Amino acid sequence: MRHALCAFRALEMIDSFNIHAVVLAGGAGVRFWPLSRETLPKQMLQIAGEDTLIRQTLKRINGFVPPNHIWIVTTSDKAQDIRFHIDSLGPLAKSIYFINEPVGRNTAPAIGLAALHLHHLSSDSIMIVMPSDHAIPETEKFLNDLTLAIRSAMDGHLVTFGIKPIRPETGYGYIQVDLSSRMEAKGLFKIERFIEKPDLQTAKGYLSQGSYFWNSGIFVWKASQILSEIATHLPSLSRILKEMESLLFSQGQPNKPNDLNQSNKPDQPEKLKDIYSRLESISIDYGVMERSRNTFMVPASFTWSDLGSWAALDEILPKNSDGNILKGNTIDVGSTDSIVFAGERLVTTIGLREMVVVDTPDATLVAPKTRSQDVRKIVEVLKQTGREERLLHKTVERPWGSYTVLEKGLGYKIKRVFLKPKARLSLQLHHRRSEHWVVVSGQAKVTTGDDIFLVRTNESTYIPVHTRHRLENPEEEPLQVIEVQSGDYLEEDDIERFEDDYGRQ
Amino acid sequence: MRHALCAFRALEMIDSFNIHAVVLAGGAGVRFWPLSRETLPKQMLQIAGEDTLIRQTLKRINGFVPPNHIWIVTTSDKAQDIRFHIDSLGPLAKSIYFINEPVGRNTAPAIGLAALHLHHLSSDSIMIVMPSDHAIPETEKFLNDLTLAIRSAMDGHLVTFGIKPIRPETGYGYIQVDLSSRMEAKGLFKIERFIEKPDLQTAKGYLSQGSYFWNSGIFVWKASQILSEIATHLPSLSRILKEMESLLFSQGQPNKPNDLNQSNKPDQPEKLKDIYSRLESISIDYGVMERSRNTFMVPASFTWSDLGSWAALDEILPKNSDGNILKGNTIDVGSTDSIVFAGERLVTTIGLREMVVVDTPDATLVAPKTRSQDVRKIVEVLKQTGREERLLHKTVERPWGSYTVLEKGLGYKIKRVFLKPKARLSLQLHHRRSEHWVVVSGQAKVTTGDDIFLVRTNESTYIPVHTRHRLENPEEEPLQVIEVQSGDYLEEDDIERFEDDYGRQ
Repeated sequence: MRHALCAFRALEMIDSFNIHAVVLAGGAGVRFWPLSRETLPKQMLQIAGEDTLIRQTLKRINGFVPPNHIWIVTTSDKAQDIRFHIDSLGPLAKSIYFINEPVGRNTAPAIGLAALHLHHLSSDSIMIVMPSDHAIPETEKFLNDLTLAIRSAMDGHLVTFGIKPIRPETGYGYIQVDLSSRMEAKGLFKIERFIEKPDLQTAKGYLSQGSYFWNSGIFVWKASQILSEIATHLPSLSRILKEMESLLFSQGQPNKPNDLNQSNKPDQPEKLKDIYSRLESISIDYGVMERSRNTFMVPASFTWSDLGSWAALDEILPKNSDGNILKGNTIDVGSTDSIVFAGERLVTTIGLREMVVVDTPDATLVAPKTRSQDVRKIVEVLKQTGREERLLHKTVERPWGSYTVLEKGLGYKIKRVFLKPKARLSLQLHHRRSEHWVVVSGQAKVTTGDDIFLVRTNESTYIPVHTRHRLENPEEEPLQVIEVQSGDYLEEDDIERFEDDYGRQ
Repeated sequence: MRHALCAFRALEMIDSFNIHAVVLAGGAGVRFWPLSRETLPKQMLQIAGEDTLIRQTLKRINGFVPPNHIWIVTTSDKAQDIRFHIDSLGPLAKSIYFINEPVGRNTAPAIGLAALHLHHLSSDSIMIVMPSDHAIPETEKFLNDLTLAIRSAMDGHLVTFGIKPIRPETGYGYIQVDLSSRMEAKGLFKIERFIEKPDLQTAKGYLSQGSYFWNSGIFVWKASQILSEIATHLPSLSRILKEMESLLFSQGQPNKPNDLNQSNKPDQPEKLKDIYSRLESISIDYGVMERSRNTFMVPASFTWSDLGSWAALDEILPKNSDGNILKGNTIDVGSTDSIVFAGERLVTTIGLREMVVVDTPDATLVAPKTRSQDVRKIVEVLKQTGREERLLHKTVERPWGSYTVLEKGLGYKIKRVFLKPKARLSLQLHHRRSEHWVVVSGQAKVTTGDDIFLVRTNESTYIPVHTRHRLENPEEEPLQVIEVQSGDYLEEDDIERFEDDYGRQ
């Protein structure tokens, strides 16, 4: 809690009651495939630091703003996964509001939508806009810089953070500042222009000068100010936001965005989706920041990476004496400057030079670091061919625990099911499969039809097709069950739920 | 059968009754890890051609010599695995004799031992000595060249095959011949000398001249002649062979080496092992060929590779237009001149240049082609750390079918067990584990204690600890069973066998 307290001190002069953190969590994270999947985007991965990126992001800002001033903007399908994912953060997780992006339309609409909500709460609301999937190992430095940015935002400016380049990076956008504009007291520079990803020659030029910075994609401004800038630079977005505003807040009450499934206006989500779908997909950088003359930059004192590709881990993770980052079950003979990301399976490497190797239970990636951006092309092939390796991992997290598909064959599927202490699955029924359960550790409470009974370690039971059943862990220890499914159709959507502790249908 | 008939024609002038093929099958095949394992050496892999290397080797020579003139020399532990492995060859497999190498001592002792057996059968026996793990795609050319070699061997020469170099290879030994010595009628050259693996500069020199050939390691000679050469150049080996001869053939009857476990001299195997263990580990090339002045070479007209490393696949397998060899479940974007060997798991590659990627269910290897020999170093690390990935695959072939370890955890292990039609496991008992069996396809006949009953698809049964049991497939269709083992010790050696169809104890 040290940096949180420290940050509170730094904010003494600022009215923190109006400051909100808006965490953008809509990204698909294709570029970290095969570790990221459509159902497990980059923000939910633990690739740098002691926790997953989104949990680190929330912990970083928690305390600097009160927990109930943290908002996550994402689509409703991702929201449920993220809610389960951050559940381990305890009370913090419970305080966080979710803002529902009806469909993904890039950052300008998402930020506009969040600004609507915050402006509705107070006309003085300040927004800190943060991606959920960046790596910022130095929280204290980050929060100090944030304080500078907030002061400037209170004066009505659009403020971003620029990262001092340390190499001629061609994967980032750049910010050019007017070095003579530095406001000594506040430490900010006036921004001259935003620059799209440059070629190598240009990037080298930027590195040798002092006035070019990497665009971090972290922003601070008043909600009222960004809405006003959107009205100027993106008038069509502004019009649609006004339509949404009248829908969202028509009854004069701040909508509780947390209650995604409990709207008192049942057709509201559909209407919002219709409206939002008409929006152009556009980034806030391109739509507003590049066009506004009211933009300022705090030169970041913190280390940062947007983790745009596997190669970006070089910026954040410690290396061994050969320049390698080796994680998981690896054996290496004589590689240098390479990244090997393994899990429990053994990955062996010999004499690699600047390569990336990523291994997961069902898929492996091998590429030179310089080509690691091209993993998108692999994901594209997987999409075109309808392959599951794009969507799911073999192990799928669930609110009650997790399951791992160990084997699929003609007419059968084998899963290892792990239940947290005291957790239970929904009361459910399958129309096309029966299930054998063997308890391999812990003790299960099983409902089958009208019977309820205990199944101990090394005992088994059988769930016939069309039979209501429930698996429950009544103990304080984890429960592990091997489930052998038999049937002509064995997909997850053959499930009818009657009761669920987690509100699923 | 075309080439076999053709070869018989070519041999019309030769008395084929005395010609024998001796297949050396003692190799560990470390260099093809992770596809090869200690229990599945290179000769049992299907890496080039339509069958495994040893089955291709046996099919290549079958017909050229009669099936009961084929001998496999290997250690007794490997002999059982090989016997099961070649079982699919039908009557041919049943005709083959096994000669038991008491312990591995390289090729000179193994060949000497085979020569003893063949010389005992007839003083005119001719031996074709062939490694079991070479790739020779062109059988007809090989058999034609073999006929030339046999004619020369009948004249009392030691004959080998030389391969015309097509690149400055540093991984092979070389043979220098006297080009002026060509015997027009017989097509052979007199050998000047054998040369150990050269450096690159020297290999380039050899390539530009016409008198250097790669040493194929395939030999033809009279059994009596090689025994006589061994007596001259390896007198200590010769003495020990004489000791063995008196043990093996003391009763004037040719020992049936096929009956490895049914010796009528129960202490004979131990005595032979004691004697053989005293032998120096030495190759026939180094021990005899380099020292004899009686050596001739047939310039091979056939394509050949000793498959000494993963990179050697380049010599044998067809490549796509980018120079890649892609096998199994692979997606590639822009690689060139690379080898990707995958199984069912997905392996994705981007922009590789002259790399080798090999994937198996439990281990992956990534290396530049130029370093693929160094896989030995990986295997050495695995050996030092006692890791199972060196010994076994997740799927283990058995005479009755196969099993795959799907998952191991604390106190449990899950296997998929596959039984061939009409096959059955031994009647057995485990002292420290119980087993749940779920039949996922086919129908099982199960013995548990005194009960015998059928278990149909989607039914299950339970085998308590300390209970005699047997799993049997009574049907003409394959049987698949998921076995969940529970217990404090779950290794394969917790097994007591009472009856076994395959003579195992």
